[in-house]
Amino acid sequence: MLTAAYTGDSTITVSEAEAQPPAPGQVQIRVAYVGLCGTDLHILHGSMDARVRTPLVFGHEMSGTIAALGDGVTGFAVGDPVTVMPLDWDGTCPACRAGNTHVCQNLDFIGIDSPGALQAYWNVPARVVVPLPVGVALRDAALVEPVAVAVHDVRRSEVAPGEKAVVIGGGPIGVLIATVARAFGAEVAVIELDANRRAQVADLGFATLDPREVDQVAWVEEWTGRAGADVVFEVSGAASAVLGATSLAKVRGTLVVVAIHPTPREIDLQRVFWRELRILGARVYERTDFERAAELVADGTIPADLLITQVVPLAETRAAFDDLEAGRAMKVLVDVQAGQPRTDAAA
Amino acid sequence: MLTAAYTGDSTITVSEAEAQPPAPGQVQIRVAYVGLCGTDLHILHGSMDARVRTPLVFGHEMSGTIAALGDGVTGFAVGDPVTVMPLDWDGTCPACRAGNTHVCQNLDFIGIDSPGALQAYWNVPARVVVPLPVGVALRDAALVEPVAVAVHDVRRSEVAPGEKAVVIGGGPIGVLIATVARAFGAEVAVIELDANRRAQVADLGFATLDPREVDQVAWVEEWTGRAGADVVFEVSGAASAVLGATSLAKVRGTLVVVAIHPTPREIDLQRVFWRELRILGARVYERTDFERAAELVADGTIPADLLITQVVPLAETRAAFDDLEAGRAMKVLVDVQAGQPRTDAAA
Repeated sequence: MLTAAYTGDSTITVSEAEAQPPAPGQVQIRVAYVGLCGTDLHILHGSMDARVRTPLVFGHEMSGTIAALGDGVTGFAVGDPVTVMPLDWDGTCPACRAGNTHVCQNLDFIGIDSPGALQAYWNVPARVVVPLPVGVALRDAALVEPVAVAVHDVRRSEVAPGEKAVVIGGGPIGVLIATVARAFGAEVAVIELDANRRAQVADLGFATLDPREVDQVAWVEEWTGRAGADVVFEVSGAASAVLGATSLAKVRGTLVVVAIHPTPREIDLQRVFWRELRILGARVYERTDFERAAELVADGTIPADLLITQVVPLAETRAAFDDLEAGRAMKVLVDVQAGQPRTDAAA
Repeated sequence: MLTAAYTGDSTITVSEAEAQPPAPGQVQIRVAYVGLCGTDLHILHGSMDARVRTPLVFGHEMSGTIAALGDGVTGFAVGDPVTVMPLDWDGTCPACRAGNTHVCQNLDFIGIDSPGALQAYWNVPARVVVPLPVGVALRDAALVEPVAVAVHDVRRSEVAPGEKAVVIGGGPIGVLIATVARAFGAEVAVIELDANRRAQVADLGFATLDPREVDQVAWVEEWTGRAGADVVFEVSGAASAVLGATSLAKVRGTLVVVAIHPTPREIDLQRVFWRELRILGARVYERTDFERAAELVADGTIPADLLITQVVPLAETRAAFDDLEAGRAMKVLVDVQAGQPRTDAAA
């Protein structure tokens, strides 16, 4: 079978490997689609070299069907459509013991800390396999992982039906958060600098604003009857956005930090104090988020056709990253079976 | 009667004024003691000149007894020991309508936005008067307002019995927060640079550490079995303390921003994200905080003798601020009746 691995120095190496049978307790998945994301891009650029071991077969947003079951695995059948929640925790650290296994202090993030999905046949522990709803398109199901991130962010915000949320940043994750927040009953406005992205977001029915054209604080004040937004999601990663975000939230409002900020950011703590704001970090997802995400993809709530702008064969993974980086794509999927040797594809 | 007013330009003017009878709905209080705090110092330095109207009779931490009741006031009797919760809200703004009256968007903070307690006879709306428990010493009761701040901070943190809390900053407010958190069942450590303050805090039975001598992160890790603190209170106001505070908290731990930070501060959002931290702004208090604070003062939980380091007559208010600023005092009280003209004192 073909695999795509990060081999250091901004290089992705596509090579032949022999598919292994699943070990006891494992499930072998015939991988259908793998989504590429910003974390993969960080890996490719070497920003995570201190953490990853090369060669790293990466990829952690995926869909597929069960190809084989290892000894002792029950509850699954060959052919079942599935995805993987790529978190494996130790169960013994203080965070796990407190019930927060998803942010285990020794978390194995599958696809980063251990081999991922950019291979035709992938063996994973049965405990991380999530069944997909019957009838879901495998192409769309590769979005379940990023949708689960959005579900986690929205659940963590505790936004309630009828409340108003502002999403700062209208890229793939911002669109997903806006969509999920609306599915949870919120009214959503999206702040985005790029005109093309703004148009796409507007096509999905969201209010949008360009903060260079409109006074965003005044706009939100007007939109919320002078209260401020119930929830603000900071998805842009920009220092200026973080600094301005606190001015958009109501008294006792919530700011969810979704983007990754590699260096410390200035926060208007005077505003945090004055309005008794709440700032929440939100990372990955819990099992319930993943299951809810699978439903939202299956029932068509997630605008998969808008989000999936490219599907490429495994051999073109490197070029797909260039498109992603250049902003030419919202979400790129790798069709892992396209171009696989016939013998493996039939295995 | 004598009053002390901020009259601009770092000046406090002590002058004669005629005591007025209470208007309908008002209570006239014979003021006993008034505590001076950091906000008063900000006023004195002109930092709040855009907000206050001079001459401002200030002072908002106080105790006294009821001298007279205005028409229509019920539920109080002349001679009752009382304090004042110095917040007057409009009841109509979005924050008030959502039930957060204490952070009303048009809040009148009595003693800042309207006349305060540095006068022998003070008229206030009956709704802001809080009865004191029978037998409480009026001197100690002047601490109820800052204790209510601490109760609010601790309640907002949701610290639970048996949990571990770190207080950064061992000044008057830090000591009160540590004391209240312990009264709520938490185990508390206090980080403080000043050796004298550290010794005072240690005398109260708290663990203390000097962050220049001890690696505070390693210390907290050890203290908490590698989990991190359940709650961190940032009371120091120092930029470096804010930046380091996030490294002290456990996964899903809480950082309460108590100090006032006049300019934006750098926060380690990577840590906020990674550990799914929660940062909470906390401002003033609610009625329940004030009532709980009165109980904690009355039952001796609050170390009033340690905290009250000076009591001065009204005429010496200006000099007392110099001591406060120089760090020569934890809490200075003004004995408002000392030195009052005899005729007024008997009114």
